[in-house]
This record gives sequence, structure tokens and C-alpha cells, in this order.
Amino acid sequence: MKPIGIIHSPFKNKKDMPIQSVGAKEIKGFIEIYPEFLPGIKDLDGFSHIYAIYQFHKNKDYKLITRPFLDNTERGVFSTRAPKRPNPIGLSIFKIESIKNEKIYVSGIDVLDKTPLLDIKPYVSKFDVINNTKNGWLENIMHKSENYKSDDRF
Amino acid sequence: MKPIGIIHSPFKNKKDMPIQSVGAKEIKGFIEIYPEFLPGIKDLDGFSHIYAIYQFHKNKDYKLITRPFLDNTERGVFSTRAPKRPNPIGLSIFKIESIKNEKIYVSGIDVLDKTPLLDIKPYVSKFDVINNTKNGWLENIMHKSENYKSDDRF
Repeated sequence: MKPIGIIHSPFKNKKDMPIQSVGAKEIKGFIEIYPEFLPGIKDLDGFSHIYAIYQFHKNKDYKLITRPFLDNTERGVFSTRAPKRPNPIGLSIFKIESIKNEKIYVSGIDVLDKTPLLDIKPYVSKFDVINNTKNGWLENIMHKSENYKSDDRF
Repeated sequence: MKPIGIIHSPFKNKKDMPIQSVGAKEIKGFIEIYPEFLPGIKDLDGFSHIYAIYQFHKNKDYKLITRPFLDNTERGVFSTRAPKRPNPIGLSIFKIESIKNEKIYVSGIDVLDKTPLLDIKPYVSKFDVINNTKNGWLENIMHKSENYKSDDRF
């Protein structure tokens, strides 16, 4: 695995960040794709949203049982989006604002500045919108994610 | 990056597979989590759907411009879900059928048997359902994905 680019965001440290993209709708930044991979972004401008798959580059260890944001109960890490994971892979949905001068300007940024980008996939409603899901321990608190900011627990 | 487990599916080779999870609703299989990571699946049973992040382990090279399933036009790879990507990371949404004897039984499987699993994240409607998206070159053909099967192009 090697980065295909870098995510530029306003967040220089982990504290006080939005914890999910839904809590970061107004947060703008851009994705710089490394020159050798630029041909791969052809046709991306037709999509309104993308999955960004990236590296939690500040996390060097992991916890299988973790106390996630939004909750004070210890949870299995795979039932959370917490960054300290066995493979430090992050997944966010960004909105494409524009693609100009080979940069992808996006909003919904909930990642640290200079986060290494591993992959981009188009968000496709037919594939990715699942209705009537059960949302586990997040069911009754997921709406809080819009206003919740991170602390320094990770 | 090292696998946290293995996805067991009925598909032994790349041809004639569903190309997306939405075309694989009836396809059942299971995820075997390696013993050292098993504590991490605690609380996952409350969720109906998960993101599986996995390795396209049969793809050793990549193409930045590719001819995806569903289309005969060459597209930038990051506007597709094609497996031959700079970082061979796959993303699927599986439905959890049950968790028994430390195995996660799922449906919606659109991956090869013995695919190495890198991460599981809960699918959370508040975070992951985006309405009114623009779906680029897939806009008018994405509905075909339910019945389309792979060929041997990748």
C-alpha cells in the first residue's frame, strides 16, 4: 500500500475535529493526487460524492476494545469507526465541490491535514444507500454526531 | 496491513460473479476472524449491515484507465469500483445474517472465496446514507448491476 495522494484539511491536530463527515458539512479542503495517478481521476467530476479510503497515519497502535466517541461504554473496535484499528484504514464520504487544476475540492472533511489517501471510489446510490438498517449501539445516539467534536482519546 | 480474517464465499474464480453487493443479495457466506482479533467483533451483532474492507488479492497490477463492467467506455479507475487499482482495496456492504461460533454469517457477497479481510466498520444510516447524489457515468446504468455478472476482464 502506498499513498495515491494527500488530503488537505483545516485540522492540524486530533482534538476538536468533527468525528464524522456528517458533522463536517461546512468543512472544506482538497485532495492532491500525486502526478503519476492523475489519469485515474478522469470521469470523477460526474459524481457528487466519493468514498475516501485513507490511512490513520497518526495511530501506531490499536485497541480491540475501545471507548468510542458518542458513548461511554467499551465497544468492540469493529463495531466502531474509531481510528485505532488493527489496520489503520479510514473511510469517509466527501462531497465533491469542484475539480480544478488537478485538485479535488471537497466538503465534509473529518480527517487530519496531510492524511495519506489510499483510494477513491465513487459513491453510487444504487450500491451504497441501504435503507432500514439496524444501527446497533449507535441507533439512538448517531444523530449527535453532527455536533460532536473529538477529544484527545485517540 | 495484515489480514484480520478471511471471507468465505461460493465464488472460486472471477468469472460469473455478481459485480456488486446489490446483485448478490441471495449470496451467502461467512467471515472468519482470526482468533487474535475476535474481541473486536463485540457489539457488531446490533448492526444489520457492515462495510467490509478487503484486499483484491488476485490483482497484482493496475490500470489508471479501465473499461469497467456495465460500460464499454474507458474510465478513470477512481470513478469505478474496478479491482485493478493502485492500492488493491475493495469495499463492499454485507448484510449480517447472524454471528455464531465466532463466525459472521453474511449475505450480499460479491467477492472471491478466501478474500483477505482488512477491516470491518459498521454501516450507520446517519453517516452513510446520502440522498440525491449524482452518479456520473453510472447514473443511467447502475440499476443493471443487480443482474450483471462479471467476465474475465480483470
